[in-house]
Amino acid sequence: MSVETQYFPDGDNEKRKRMSTGLQINCPHSLRLAIQSAYEFGYHFVVTQITHPNYARELLKGKPPPSIGRTDRILQSLEWSRYIVAELTPTINVDSEIDHVQRKSKALFLQELGFAVHLGVPVVKICLTKRHNGQLGRLVNEKLVHGFNSSFWVTVPMVHPSQYSPICGEDEKEDSWEWWNDFRTYCNYDKHVGVVLELPEVRYIPTKSEVDRWIGEPVRALIVPTSYFIMNTHGKPVLSRLHQELIQRFLSIDVQYIIKTDTEGDLSVYTKYLHFLGKKLYVSDTNLEFIQGCEDFLQNPLQPLTEHLETNIYEVFEKDQIKYTTYQNAIQKALEDVPADVTIPTIMVVGAGRGPLVQAALNVSYILHRKVKVYAVEKNPYAINTLIDRVKHEWSDQVTLINDDMRVYEPPEKADILVSELLGSFGDNELSPECLDGAQRFLKRNGISIPCSYTSYLAPLQSIKIFNEIRNNRPADKTLKTCYETPYVIHLVNYYQIAPAQALFKFEHPNWSDVINNERYKKLRFNCTQTCILTGFVGFFDTVLYKDVTLSIHPETHTHEMVSWFPIVFPLMEPLKVSGGSVIEISFWRVENQDKVWYEWCLESPAKTCIMNPGGRSYSIKKH
Amino acid sequence: MSVETQYFPDGDNEKRKRMSTGLQINCPHSLRLAIQSAYEFGYHFVVTQITHPNYARELLKGKPPPSIGRTDRILQSLEWSRYIVAELTPTINVDSEIDHVQRKSKALFLQELGFAVHLGVPVVKICLTKRHNGQLGRLVNEKLVHGFNSSFWVTVPMVHPSQYSPICGEDEKEDSWEWWNDFRTYCNYDKHVGVVLELPEVRYIPTKSEVDRWIGEPVRALIVPTSYFIMNTHGKPVLSRLHQELIQRFLSIDVQYIIKTDTEGDLSVYTKYLHFLGKKLYVSDTNLEFIQGCEDFLQNPLQPLTEHLETNIYEVFEKDQIKYTTYQNAIQKALEDVPADVTIPTIMVVGAGRGPLVQAALNVSYILHRKVKVYAVEKNPYAINTLIDRVKHEWSDQVTLINDDMRVYEPPEKADILVSELLGSFGDNELSPECLDGAQRFLKRNGISIPCSYTSYLAPLQSIKIFNEIRNNRPADKTLKTCYETPYVIHLVNYYQIAPAQALFKFEHPNWSDVINNERYKKLRFNCTQTCILTGFVGFFDTVLYKDVTLSIHPETHTHEMVSWFPIVFPLMEPLKVSGGSVIEISFWRVENQDKVWYEWCLESPAKTCIMNPGGRSYSIKKH
Repeated sequence: MSVETQYFPDGDNEKRKRMSTGLQINCPHSLRLAIQSAYEFGYHFVVTQITHPNYARELLKGKPPPSIGRTDRILQSLEWSRYIVAELTPTINVDSEIDHVQRKSKALFLQELGFAVHLGVPVVKICLTKRHNGQLGRLVNEKLVHGFNSSFWVTVPMVHPSQYSPICGEDEKEDSWEWWNDFRTYCNYDKHVGVVLELPEVRYIPTKSEVDRWIGEPVRALIVPTSYFIMNTHGKPVLSRLHQELIQRFLSIDVQYIIKTDTEGDLSVYTKYLHFLGKKLYVSDTNLEFIQGCEDFLQNPLQPLTEHLETNIYEVFEKDQIKYTTYQNAIQKALEDVPADVTIPTIMVVGAGRGPLVQAALNVSYILHRKVKVYAVEKNPYAINTLIDRVKHEWSDQVTLINDDMRVYEPPEKADILVSELLGSFGDNELSPECLDGAQRFLKRNGISIPCSYTSYLAPLQSIKIFNEIRNNRPADKTLKTCYETPYVIHLVNYYQIAPAQALFKFEHPNWSDVINNERYKKLRFNCTQTCILTGFVGFFDTVLYKDVTLSIHPETHTHEMVSWFPIVFPLMEPLKVSGGSVIEISFWRVENQDKVWYEWCLESPAKTCIMNPGGRSYSIKKH
Repeated sequence: MSVETQYFPDGDNEKRKRMSTGLQINCPHSLRLAIQSAYEFGYHFVVTQITHPNYARELLKGKPPPSIGRTDRILQSLEWSRYIVAELTPTINVDSEIDHVQRKSKALFLQELGFAVHLGVPVVKICLTKRHNGQLGRLVNEKLVHGFNSSFWVTVPMVHPSQYSPICGEDEKEDSWEWWNDFRTYCNYDKHVGVVLELPEVRYIPTKSEVDRWIGEPVRALIVPTSYFIMNTHGKPVLSRLHQELIQRFLSIDVQYIIKTDTEGDLSVYTKYLHFLGKKLYVSDTNLEFIQGCEDFLQNPLQPLTEHLETNIYEVFEKDQIKYTTYQNAIQKALEDVPADVTIPTIMVVGAGRGPLVQAALNVSYILHRKVKVYAVEKNPYAINTLIDRVKHEWSDQVTLINDDMRVYEPPEKADILVSELLGSFGDNELSPECLDGAQRFLKRNGISIPCSYTSYLAPLQSIKIFNEIRNNRPADKTLKTCYETPYVIHLVNYYQIAPAQALFKFEHPNWSDVINNERYKKLRFNCTQTCILTGFVGFFDTVLYKDVTLSIHPETHTHEMVSWFPIVFPLMEPLKVSGGSVIEISFWRVENQDKVWYEWCLESPAKTCIMNPGGRSYSIKKH
């Protein structure tokens, strides 16, 4: 039982999400007994006020009476710090326009917050009840910059009642996302400030795009009133299908659940039901298991030309059977197209690694009953060590090993098929174009390159989580600017893609042009349909391996169950609020010189920014 | 089974040290089978060469033959990274004076090290076999500064055989500590470089002070040859009492054990025996349990005058029953000395916190059947909140609460006994002198202060661990110099106290002098009996509470089972090698101005350093 831990430890093989559930308890007579009872009902934490209304406090009249509320000794500090979400008195109104109410509220707020710090609770919960919360934002932000170690949970309704009120005019409608957005902007998007959403009634569940935008926010918990439960045929309380679907949307970002009730009795049914829901809604997918635990984690793109890959990287690659089966299909179709007068077709695998594509080529040879000669070109001597072993024990003399860089190696013969897997998350970002332009020297003029082509895509992105990850994980030897001028490969989870992705750059192989130019420039325009926060751009790619055999990580065409690539994110320096209906425009460059290739980017609309990463000063892909 | 994890997870209540044991395996035919077998015997990891002597490698003759050794695919990357300590070929001699041997060795060394990196093993083990290892040090250091993520284990004998060889003259005797010390100095004391010690035969076990010095080193493992085991009366192999005592010395710093054997058969007996030894030698001490897990962890000293303590700090304090029982004894002796004509003696507890000393005073009143009036002065409003509750439910009107700073409060009457617990790890370092000088205003002229006096102590310290903790945990907003000019409170474990502690500063209360001066200066001289590395000074204190009732954290007089205070460490900027027989001299100041108190210190001998923390620029204790 704890409000902090989110995951089961390794070794728990049960395939489900952990549904961490808290119970809202209003002014229990004995907090200790209330926690004990919540624990027995199966709850993981308790949401409650730390001051009791019995302790009326009038702080502004003379010397304050020192008694604040419950004594800290009713729980052990470990219990305070694990199980208690401290809800501040909701009637405190530091944004009141009535001066004495404002002053009294401020004194009460600071006293309660100080007491929460004294108790060491992990979370302080506050509610937004109106549009303007400037005073509250200032007080919370002041606390944050002085090194507040706990978290603030800011509660708003997922949909403001005015949205569906028959008596509210269009100009009276409130958007609770705007309340939240204003508030966390005051607090400089601090990672200690999360949002808690009150679930709406079924009939007021918002549109998909509104929910999408919430998924791009640091949602910490959903509040579920017990009145939303309906009785199933077995007489057990369950949520309606639409509520279940709504909850499923939030499963990926691991929110917690707060059960709110006015009734007494057996409250275990609700936490049991959520536990059951976690099992039911969790989509078990063995292929996705080994990428769990790296959600929203920043990875620097590989530099395979200058650094040898290590054995664990090869192993992760090789686990993606979908990718290599697809490659094998492409090699098969290509081999079928090699003219019959070529007695023994030559297949060159460039960047062979530990040999998965060599194996795919040999599989095709076996399937088609057609003898082939395979060259495996690999510059990493430690991967060659493995290939030697595989030649000796698995492949025999069908395969010739070459321990050299594909850009300088001089082959004894030319190839019919050139196979490579040099693509990064953004297609060309691991210098596949430069490598294959070099390697095609040993491809016959009518030879086939697998892949034949690849295209990069971009889309505007809202992810406060990623903005904070970049800001908070600066290595000691880098400036913050350097960190924002660098793309990251990320298993994106807590994000909102603001508009559909659009094609950016395309490369084709072989490229027999007299002059090959791999520099590129393009401007893309996206329509922003609802107000949101732009924090950067997310990149994808797709590739035609051969004919109709393709691989893709573009969200709309993503190859099923393929996990080899995560999206790439190009950040902006600062989050930018973009109004619904406006246009987001970006300029994007691929630039190169003798030593390196790099990207530059800048926002053109709705605001112009300076060009990021000029001259590749913060990030580049080295050629040597 | 893993070479990395050292502790049982929380919740394992078995009272013993985990004895993590590895098996040295020389050139197994099948590494996979060897690991499987070691696992079944109960070992946690395996020490073995990653290249096989069958793969003769002649790197300098023309193009290197690419095959290095075993293929990486015989184990999964997770297995390489958890279970394998890679021992480099011991015949590699990069420090050979024969040029071609040196060049060939360097090529082999770099290839093996590169292969170890490729495999992702957690540890690379190398052996020092002679005095001068400059080339090896340079190669390892070059790897370290390029971001080596694994560890190096450097193996030396705990005692060099020349020390007890009858044919070695005094000038031919080698000190293996010097070998190790030279090597890690080349590597700038990098935390990734640890030492592995070969256990000596019983008759060559070194002196206590030599072992003490090893305890101050980053010892990662002890090598135990199976030939050291003797058969007990049950026919089971055990270690002799002297070997057991030697191992017990290393228990506190959590070394691992490597079993080295030439024999075949059931090797589980050795790991079972070490497991048993862990249970047998572990000194269970319930009072020490709650300080486990903070070994060698840097804590910043409290600033109780400017920051309110939080509930978990009070709770930790209150758990130390030894301390409060001793306080109660002192209060009892003091109350017995209050003249009988004082009808109701007044006891003022200043800095009452959540009331443990108030409770002690009331206990004494009950024991002596003498009514007392207790004032509890406390400035923290959240602690006062607790005290209000205790007055209401436990103490009633015997206790008067005062929510004010003891330095400004004006009491209605003067006290017979003034009780406080304002002492830090260095005695005066939480400004007890300044606070009690202020608070004695409300002590009767013949009144008693508990404590009556306290004294700080200093001793020279070797702890590479702490030097590295300071260097590697620099907060983003501080310079490295600031970090070295700050004292830290530390539960010291991996350290060597170079000489006995000496008294530094003493303070007495009440202090009725006309002019009170709490500034101090003293020079201390310590004799260094054996060559070692000075990294700073460690501070302690003792206090006379009243008459013969004392508390102490001085190592020679430490109050049994008291855990409220850990030692304090004053670092130096750089480790300094000090020869056996030389003198270590330090100048130490306590300085104050209107706003703050601070310490300055500098080494006078064997080398002069600049004065650390001038003007309190990096660390001071604030008065307001």
